[in-house]
Amino acid sequence: MIDKPPITFEVVARDGEARAGIMTTRRGTIETPVFMPVGTAGTVKGTRFEALEDELDVRIILGNTYHLWLRPGVDVIRECGGLHRFIGWQRALLTDSGGFQVWSLGALRKITEEGTQFRSHVDGSLQFLSPEVSMEVQAALGSDIVMAFDECAPGDAPPDISRQSMELTARWAKRSRATFDNLQSQALDAGRTQATEAVSGAPALFGIVQGGVHLDLRRESLLRTREIGFDGYAVGGLSVGEEKSVMWKVVSELMPELPANHPRYLMGVGTPEDLVEAVSHGIDMFDCVLPTRNGRTGQAFTSRGKVNVKNAQWALDTRPLDESCECAVCQRHSRAYLRHLYTAREMLASVLLTHHNLAFFLDTMRRVRQSIRSGDFTKFRQEFTEGLSAYEQEKALSSS
Amino acid sequence: MIDKPPITFEVVARDGEARAGIMTTRRGTIETPVFMPVGTAGTVKGTRFEALEDELDVRIILGNTYHLWLRPGVDVIRECGGLHRFIGWQRALLTDSGGFQVWSLGALRKITEEGTQFRSHVDGSLQFLSPEVSMEVQAALGSDIVMAFDECAPGDAPPDISRQSMELTARWAKRSRATFDNLQSQALDAGRTQATEAVSGAPALFGIVQGGVHLDLRRESLLRTREIGFDGYAVGGLSVGEEKSVMWKVVSELMPELPANHPRYLMGVGTPEDLVEAVSHGIDMFDCVLPTRNGRTGQAFTSRGKVNVKNAQWALDTRPLDESCECAVCQRHSRAYLRHLYTAREMLASVLLTHHNLAFFLDTMRRVRQSIRSGDFTKFRQEFTEGLSAYEQEKALSSS
Repeated sequence: MIDKPPITFEVVARDGEARAGIMTTRRGTIETPVFMPVGTAGTVKGTRFEALEDELDVRIILGNTYHLWLRPGVDVIRECGGLHRFIGWQRALLTDSGGFQVWSLGALRKITEEGTQFRSHVDGSLQFLSPEVSMEVQAALGSDIVMAFDECAPGDAPPDISRQSMELTARWAKRSRATFDNLQSQALDAGRTQATEAVSGAPALFGIVQGGVHLDLRRESLLRTREIGFDGYAVGGLSVGEEKSVMWKVVSELMPELPANHPRYLMGVGTPEDLVEAVSHGIDMFDCVLPTRNGRTGQAFTSRGKVNVKNAQWALDTRPLDESCECAVCQRHSRAYLRHLYTAREMLASVLLTHHNLAFFLDTMRRVRQSIRSGDFTKFRQEFTEGLSAYEQEKALSSS
Repeated sequence: MIDKPPITFEVVARDGEARAGIMTTRRGTIETPVFMPVGTAGTVKGTRFEALEDELDVRIILGNTYHLWLRPGVDVIRECGGLHRFIGWQRALLTDSGGFQVWSLGALRKITEEGTQFRSHVDGSLQFLSPEVSMEVQAALGSDIVMAFDECAPGDAPPDISRQSMELTARWAKRSRATFDNLQSQALDAGRTQATEAVSGAPALFGIVQGGVHLDLRRESLLRTREIGFDGYAVGGLSVGEEKSVMWKVVSELMPELPANHPRYLMGVGTPEDLVEAVSHGIDMFDCVLPTRNGRTGQAFTSRGKVNVKNAQWALDTRPLDESCECAVCQRHSRAYLRHLYTAREMLASVLLTHHNLAFFLDTMRRVRQSIRSGDFTKFRQEFTEGLSAYEQEKALSSS
């Protein structure tokens, strides 16, 4: 059987280390650098899929294997035709492996060579996740980009703990690759069976580079991951408590050693300024809960810095969250109204703030791509970063 | 100053007592019978205004004076240019008087000739609402249809209590009318000052018929309300604990005595079958929290009866909530997915169920209007009512 390649990726423009590319999955084409909204339990919290498609032009979202596996469960999703059909989303889906989520359970988990034993946060039942199980679950979900099952050391782990973790991740990566290939050869992937949606081709499998904050371990992890061979390469285990400067040191050292013709994904990062900084090192893909989670807690990201809508100072402020934002929320609603909704604990506060935050993150990436293509990325980055502190400057001036 | 009439209303078709009409407010034309979604605190809970306008074609929503008065407060809304500007909604708004909300506080309120003293549910502060205050607040909100300030007796009140309440309502109706006219003559109405939105003309004032379940009191209330003269007439104090048959007795006896050339509004009613029943008695306007509130608690209204999405029987059900519904939720999502969202306590469950329920209520009213215009209302009503029990019949069959 000759099949389409699982993914194609082409860099179409460079500006310094920053790169603009085109990634083609079996469910559509995605311009990079790209930000992927997080759809933890099969929903980008509080956001209708119509808004993601028609208003925000989201081409790919992330699903969490751990959460979906525990609830509603793989059997339900398989029975309903895979995750795309189950949730009503026909564009691309990347699923994480569950490794990070299980890791973040802390004391509730026990890691062995075979895999990770842990107690479900939903019902307390004892569960077991391994490279094999993770690959099977992600195939049943019908994910378009599957992540290898990894282990993540704490940000402050000493070298020996980080080494053990990195080596385990390398062995698990091999097992992930083998199981993934085996499942593909048997066509045991929900995506392949969805003939009615005219989906053809295999999903992609991405490897994950670990090694904590130790550059030698990171380099070794990268080599071992490349040796196995993946469709794309992710950097995991960053933004987990280490200093920001350490994160950028790791990213900047690793990037030149990653294959240039594959997408590079910085997992779980970050703020708008983090995204732009990461792009400057050559990262192509991002996911982060910040726009959605902070939206629910009343925080808006804007081109002039963060706005906490609960602050009393907005009670009579008829300006939009961000005067240079073209999203539907900024076109229609004032800070005064959003503050009222948040104060009255109205669901619409979360819905609207999440919408605006996603619009801001996605629009930032669109502008990043444009600036790379036009060779203006350095200028864009400088203006963008300066703009982000405008509110702090105003505050400092008005209180001086 | 010659002004446009505050409202025009024309009956364009009749079928028995049922009537289809056109009501024109200063903010647009509304076909009746009409269902008004409830926007308690300046938001139809969980629903973006874009969905109300573009998907659901809602022409008028209801705002609660009591809630908005307490939070964010009249000063905030006035300062932000009135309720329309504050919330970002340029179509028609009806506001209730606050009377019913204060009444439903029960032991927390004290009623005198002057008005009602009560403790705020927001901060426990002592507050006072009267016909004068209610009219001033509704003018500051810039409401397009203002409701007179009334008092509502309990559904099981004896005749003497009901009479006291009805007589107080009549005296308050006079004071409401006088204050409203005075405010209008001074142009103290936020709607008039919103020149940029090209709104001209006065708001309408509706009177409210009370009298509990006692027909003689209802008739007297109606006469006294008509004597004062209003742009439309509401029936209040029903659906507050009395038997359904009693409610229909009151409605059917009152309707022929209400002026035919003014809109008739049955406040706070009801289920889809209630709406259709009420239309058969000649009611033109409705509001009810059922589609929104029940949506948040996992209950969907469908053409074949109610669906509780939390039920385990839907876990693998890939059918939409309502196979004959054309709303975006039914076009995209399955019961299995909605059940998952509800079980996982995802906000999107409330958002989607509310959207579907509103679509079902509004579509029902659209079909009611069509059937009246084509003279098929009786047939429509019979088929609609039979359809609503289809699920119960299926259940009975499958368990026999």
